[in-house]
Amino acid sequence: MRIYGDKRSGNCYKLQLLLALQGKTCEWIDVDILKGQTRTDGFLEKSANGKIPILEFDDGRVLSESNAIMHYLAAGSPFIPSSTYEFAKLLQWQFFEQYSHEPYIAVARYINIYLGLPEEKKAEFEAKQAGGYSALEVMERQLTETPFLVGDSLTLADISLFAYTHVAHEGGFDLTPFPAVRNWISLVKDQKGFIPLQG
Amino acid sequence: MRIYGDKRSGNCYKLQLLLALQGKTCEWIDVDILKGQTRTDGFLEKSANGKIPILEFDDGRVLSESNAIMHYLAAGSPFIPSSTYEFAKLLQWQFFEQYSHEPYIAVARYINIYLGLPEEKKAEFEAKQAGGYSALEVMERQLTETPFLVGDSLTLADISLFAYTHVAHEGGFDLTPFPAVRNWISLVKDQKGFIPLQG
Repeated sequence: MRIYGDKRSGNCYKLQLLLALQGKTCEWIDVDILKGQTRTDGFLEKSANGKIPILEFDDGRVLSESNAIMHYLAAGSPFIPSSTYEFAKLLQWQFFEQYSHEPYIAVARYINIYLGLPEEKKAEFEAKQAGGYSALEVMERQLTETPFLVGDSLTLADISLFAYTHVAHEGGFDLTPFPAVRNWISLVKDQKGFIPLQG
Repeated sequence: MRIYGDKRSGNCYKLQLLLALQGKTCEWIDVDILKGQTRTDGFLEKSANGKIPILEFDDGRVLSESNAIMHYLAAGSPFIPSSTYEFAKLLQWQFFEQYSHEPYIAVARYINIYLGLPEEKKAEFEAKQAGGYSALEVMERQLTETPFLVGDSLTLADISLFAYTHVAHEGGFDLTPFPAVRNWISLVKDQKGFIPLQG
């Protein structure tokens, strides 16, 4: 099986980081978002939603959505808690990431870093700030109570949220008012096998 | 335990429909989004992200995110496939729902039905149409191949996507060009225990 991804993308980095923390590897095929390589007929044939990362199996089956692929790659591992409540809590944080965090922090970073904050995108960039700070406040509240998002040990929830939170400054976000978030970033970086985002 | 929700909301309906299909009930506390009842100090104390639905346990713990709560309510049931691949596929559709479907179809419906499509929201309403139709095309492609989103039987993925798809017309979306989606809507409505959205 193989992953199609862009190594500058936080959504793709989630899979690289998870594999590294597990001491695993997977074939990787580079796809350049900025060159439109997720919108070609060939890519859309693999995955109709035209987004990366995707995981392709040797028999042709394809999984999309970074957070879903993580569950496949980490099935049965300690990164997925076995209690029904903690598992639902893990999912809560992953859905929070896709709805309330990524559309603000990742998109602001994309406009700033990938597109170079062009004049016509400045209003959209500014409009992303309030939502991004709200998401960071939600994380801060949890991380003041527990070292990781779902308790005392690292789960997929932390990997999902780490991907764009640790580069939030590239989207214009100042993490100074979020000491628990900054401490958590250090804890994730200290995990055995950790690799940095290659962006 | 009890659910806090607004019965007009598709995200809250997911839980009502899931419980009904399981023949279960749960205490329900009405929260009116339009009256700002998810932004009060009392509600934010329960759930920092200020969104409904939430599931509150008798010991004070709280789960948020509709799709995550569904996994708690349906744990061990046939609505959650046991194979690792099919389970990841179910999650793929739920993340697709929150990132690529709900922000277009549900938000267009909200602007149209809840807010009455005011002049100052018309541009935003129009801007939601392309993304909503793209999401419907992705669903159509899958539902042309399989009767339900993850194969031959109904899973949480279908309940998650049904919530806003079956009222997509209220967001200005015409389902005529999507026969497989329309057939799937009928299949869901035919399930034993089905209840309609009370909106």
